[in-house]
Amino acid sequence: MDITTLFKLSSGLYIICAKDEEKKALSGFAGCVVNTVLQTTAKPVTISVCVNKDNYTNTCIKNSKEFTASILSEKIKESIIGDFGFHSSINKDKFSNTPYALSPSGLPYIKEGVTGFIQCKVIDSIDTYTHTIFVGEVTEAQNLSSEPPMTYEYYHKVIKGKAPKNASTYVEETSSPKAAGEAKGYKCGLCGYEHPGTKEEFEKLPADYTCPMCGAAKNLFEPM
Amino acid sequence: MDITTLFKLSSGLYIICAKDEEKKALSGFAGCVVNTVLQTTAKPVTISVCVNKDNYTNTCIKNSKEFTASILSEKIKESIIGDFGFHSSINKDKFSNTPYALSPSGLPYIKEGVTGFIQCKVIDSIDTYTHTIFVGEVTEAQNLSSEPPMTYEYYHKVIKGKAPKNASTYVEETSSPKAAGEAKGYKCGLCGYEHPGTKEEFEKLPADYTCPMCGAAKNLFEPM
Repeated sequence: MDITTLFKLSSGLYIICAKDEEKKALSGFAGCVVNTVLQTTAKPVTISVCVNKDNYTNTCIKNSKEFTASILSEKIKESIIGDFGFHSSINKDKFSNTPYALSPSGLPYIKEGVTGFIQCKVIDSIDTYTHTIFVGEVTEAQNLSSEPPMTYEYYHKVIKGKAPKNASTYVEETSSPKAAGEAKGYKCGLCGYEHPGTKEEFEKLPADYTCPMCGAAKNLFEPM
Repeated sequence: MDITTLFKLSSGLYIICAKDEEKKALSGFAGCVVNTVLQTTAKPVTISVCVNKDNYTNTCIKNSKEFTASILSEKIKESIIGDFGFHSSINKDKFSNTPYALSPSGLPYIKEGVTGFIQCKVIDSIDTYTHTIFVGEVTEAQNLSSEPPMTYEYYHKVIKGKAPKNASTYVEETSSPKAAGEAKGYKCGLCGYEHPGTKEEFEKLPADYTCPMCGAAKNLFEPM
């Protein structure tokens, strides 16, 4: 089996949000990044989304039976993908630095750098190994901009983003990091963000430099 | 609810094939076009696909518990999308004019105009109104070309393709066709293919002209 064939499946990028009934999330809401939203039926309108069971957002959707999907555009701030994609809602208040609003049912959705949002009531779900596929009946949908939707391909090729460990599409890296001597530059070991400068420019950055994408500390960067 | 928000969900285009154990399909196999394939888990590798219950391919997957997904590229012949997207495998031998090969388990996959194919064993499924979501464990995956994968957006914008009635994303057309007098050209009333010539050029075509996309007769074309 050639795993790279799976890389040819086209998808978008979304932030899924839910209410936190267990009150464990720092902000009272949970949210995470996925690339697994699809329309499943036209009448009534339903969509499906696949979320890792280790993500606290999965627990919150199971408990509250509602979620929103914010459709990320190419203009989304990288730090928002970093916050929602590479941290847990239990340890990080993901909403304090993110422009958001509440849907008619009181669930958060991202307001900027998105093309719109969809609000859903969960009508069914299916467990599949590490993930749950939730099927949601659409109860609200609004356009918020005419920016082009972010595709997963754009995220990889243009933003040079990586899939987090909990993603449906996660692939373990097999190449070992280069020795600092042969490196041309540095990339974040957590989210894959590539620092745009040379090796020397990166090394001159202050010790408290953090990844603009996911907030990882400077010492988590790897030579590349 | 603004249904156009749903149009922002990114997806690819695929032909799903299955063995026909009931022997109703003219070719011994069933196949249809969908835009609903996604990777669901990474370890083991699984994908999901959503297929309308009225499609004979759905019945065949339910019976045989196996399917292939051929990942269409931008180079796929429009007539193949027409054959697999706008006809039933019971009434049309979809494989006689289509270059295909057999996967290790003996299921057909499309050989040309695709980036690769994935073979799956169904491990679970979920019914959602008009459609079934099948979850398949990937048993084989091969790359067949480095052509860019066809996105659903490309299909709509460049090929000017329409969603068939059984698609997850089908939207009923509300605008009535133009009167022939004010028309600038003609489009296929079945699949939406827009004839590239003027109204006059279209009208001069022979009476046995058929849509190059889906094979519809000339009299099914509508002024636009």
